Amino acid sequence: MKLLLTAFDPFGGEKVNPALEAVKLVADQLDGISVIKVEVPTVFNKSIDTVESAVRKHQPQVVLCIGQAGGRFDVTPERVAINVNDARIPDNEGNQPVDRPIFEDGEPAYFSTLPIKAMVEEMRKAGVPSSVSNTAGTFVCNHLMYGVMYHLAKSHPGVRGGFIHVPFIPNQVIGRPNTPSLALGDIVTALEASIRAIGKNLTDTEVTGGRES
Amino acid sequence: MKLLLTAFDPFGGEKVNPALEAVKLVADQLDGISVIKVEVPTVFNKSIDTVESAVRKHQPQVVLCIGQAGGRFDVTPERVAINVNDARIPDNEGNQPVDRPIFEDGEPAYFSTLPIKAMVEEMRKAGVPSSVSNTAGTFVCNHLMYGVMYHLAKSHPGVRGGFIHVPFIPNQVIGRPNTPSLALGDIVTALEASIRAIGKNLTDTEVTGGRES
Amino acid sequence: MKLLLTAFDPFGGEKVNPALEAVKLVADQLDGISVIKVEVPTVFNKSIDTVESAVRKHQPQVVLCIGQAGGRFDVTPERVAINVNDARIPDNEGNQPVDRPIFEDGEPAYFSTLPIKAMVEEMRKAGVPSSVSNTAGTFVCNHLMYGVMYHLAKSHPGVRGGFIHVPFIPNQVIGRPNTPSLALGDIVTALEASIRAIGKNLTDTEVTGGRES
Amino acid sequence: MKLLLTAFDPFGGEKVNPALEAVKLVADQLDGISVIKVEVPTVFNKSIDTVESAVRKHQPQVVLCIGQAGGRFDVTPERVAINVNDARIPDNEGNQPVDRPIFEDGEPAYFSTLPIKAMVEEMRKAGVPSSVSNTAGTFVCNHLMYGVMYHLAKSHPGVRGGFIHVPFIPNQVIGRPNTPSLALGDIVTALEASIRAIGKNLTDTEVTGGRES
Repeated sequence: MKLLLTAFDPFGGEKVNPALEAVKLVADQLDGISVIKVEVPTVFNKSIDTVESAVRKHQPQVVLCIGQAGGRFDVTPERVAINVNDARIPDNEGNQPVDRPIFEDGEPAYFSTLPIKAMVEEMRKAGVPSSVSNTAGTFVCNHLMYGVMYHLAKSHPGVRGGFIHVPFIPNQVIGRPNTPSLALGDIVTALEASIRAIGKNLTDTEVTGGRES
Repeated sequence: MKLLLTAFDPFGGEKVNPALEAVKLVADQLDGISVIKVEVPTVFNKSIDTVESAVRKHQPQVVLCIGQAGGRFDVTPERVAINVNDARIPDNEGNQPVDRPIFEDGEPAYFSTLPIKAMVEEMRKAGVPSSVSNTAGTFVCNHLMYGVMYHLAKSHPGVRGGFIHVPFIPNQVIGRPNTPSLALGDIVTALEASIRAIGKNLTDTEVTGGRES
Repeated sequence: MKLLLTAFDPFGGEKVNPALEAVKLVADQLDGISVIKVEVPTVFNKSIDTVESAVRKHQPQVVLCIGQAGGRFDVTPERVAINVNDARIPDNEGNQPVDRPIFEDGEPAYFSTLPIKAMVEEMRKAGVPSSVSNTAGTFVCNHLMYGVMYHLAKSHPGVRGGFIHVPFIPNQVIGRPNTPSLALGDIVTALEASIRAIGKNLTDTEVTGGRES
Repeated sequence: MKLLLTAFDPFGGEKVNPALEAVKLVADQLDGISVIKVEVPTVFNKSIDTVESAVRKHQPQVVLCIGQAGGRFDVTPERVAINVNDARIPDNEGNQPVDRPIFEDGEPAYFSTLPIKAMVEEMRKAGVPSSVSNTAGTFVCNHLMYGVMYHLAKSHPGVRGGFIHVPFIPNQVIGRPNTPSLALGDIVTALEASIRAIGKNLTDTEVTGGRES
């Protein structure tokens, strides 16, 4: 099995992106899964193009994109991406779209086709706090997840895809009161546990991972 | 203009639902808008049926549903509802569906057709903290918003609809450390400001209300 | 009984101080207690001098000082003030002492001589979330509480004193994500409940109000 | 230089105490400092007796006590301990004192005699988020810090002492939403950085570490 693992470069004034730092440290081979890594610019459209090109080139069975979610407490597989760009801050090339669809001919939303509950379970077994997230925001992370799922649905039948958000690492929260972080090593452990769960589970386990709001 | 305003009964062990208490206090006439109020059971399917019946009976131009989001800091119009039920806790009749679609023939998601940015602006002008939310959760609130938008799309062309989540009121957070609340009066003010914004804005204002994650 | 009720002017870039706005609205007579109000500058030393002068002038039986604690979720009577000034930001006249004692000949700390547990109970009965706080910080609020208790201990035997911190009001947190607030009316209710509790309880009730950390 | 490093056993239903796990992993020799480790029962009075006996036996120049502060985001040297026991939960032998002084003949409070600002700086340089705390709570942690400082002041002139609170580790927050944690390795790094700072700084650096409330 071949898995394409992508991560964004730093954005929003941060010096590092914990997603990228963690992806660099993920093993290249995991339980018989070959992990191919791609760095993605935090830029609308270019991010989707970068991953779409890599999908065409490497023909993976799974696409797993990783992004930073500053302020989150745990590692969160995303359940769904929605068809909207609404940027609170500019991307790395100054684009700041407001309330624009990502693809005019796309679905209102695409659900992850990865086993997000099984991934959460495996991450927790590995000792890392994790939970399902029901929003990937409306910036480049949601944009990329949406774009990847759009292309997989249109042009790559059978290829599974999804997104995981990871918290800040400790270095990023020094001097920032009341901001949670997770060690880089724990994020790597979580990503590797997720990849193993993806390898083992073609369908998801039926355990609740919902929230009231 | 006729606006159907709905609110859930208490759930999850709470004695009151601030959404319901606030809706009771909203004026029946606001800037030429007639407000018709309906209480909704916090029960899968029954909640949708209750509102759908009221829509048929009252033929409103707008449907605005209100629900409690314990733990939130401000009043949050929802941007989108997704096609999934995933209940962490049972509803008021013991139903606890996990990862089931709401309507097999529905869209993956429905976006609010209310002017959510204009509503946020109007609530803030009225002195109440407010922001757009990108997830209504996966419990009965998301379920109802999804079901209402599904029926409006299928059977009530031109009728606008959407959902607002409101925080706990102070009484509910006594003895609960670090849990935010808003006064009932402020929630009423926010709902009335939202209704006014709906009356004034057929299309939304283009200001950012996005989040990175 | 005569009670001196003080509140600071706005500081830290805020346009209002919820403590001051609330104090203005507290009744002048409450259960036979005459409430005398004094506005206090958010300035090291001057704040203490202002209250000390008012104590000499009005000869109250109780001194209750109120201050803003932005970021807190509830109304919090302070248990103790400590003998240190350590300012993260300048006061309203630009003073920013670091790790300096308030009074060289003072105790390391003074405990509130008000019935803080009874005050919490009375505020909760009145519907407002409240809890005991074990730190008043190291800025002008702690400074004033310390200074008042120092002077009461030295020169005004039998006069009781203490401090209450109140959260932001909703207006202050508009546009500030994840920041709690309480309505001004609820803060007024809480302060009046506290004053009543002070009038009724010469000694405190023995209920736990502690924290592990 | 000899430094006595103490940590509590698990309490409050937890299976581990991150303070104890971290202390076990701290190096026994650090920059010429011999580190002597003692496990302390989370029990009123017994905890103080345990450390006081160890001080008499080992005659250290520094006593540094470590405890768990579930819910905190970073590693926090305590500034002060106050003369009160007020237990929200029972200790490990069922004691639950409410509003009782720790020592009748003790000061109202004792300040840490360790260089807490220098410790924070050194921890941050080592990549771990850290800040000064102005309250150690009112449970066994504050109790022990107070008791140690009391005995040092009375009977061990020249011996410096203080306390550091550490957050939960990731394992403890699995399934606990919105609860921060720090990796055990980062806590160990922070404690070793603190010990180095203690070795290097007889007096504290004058940088602000204060809070408004």
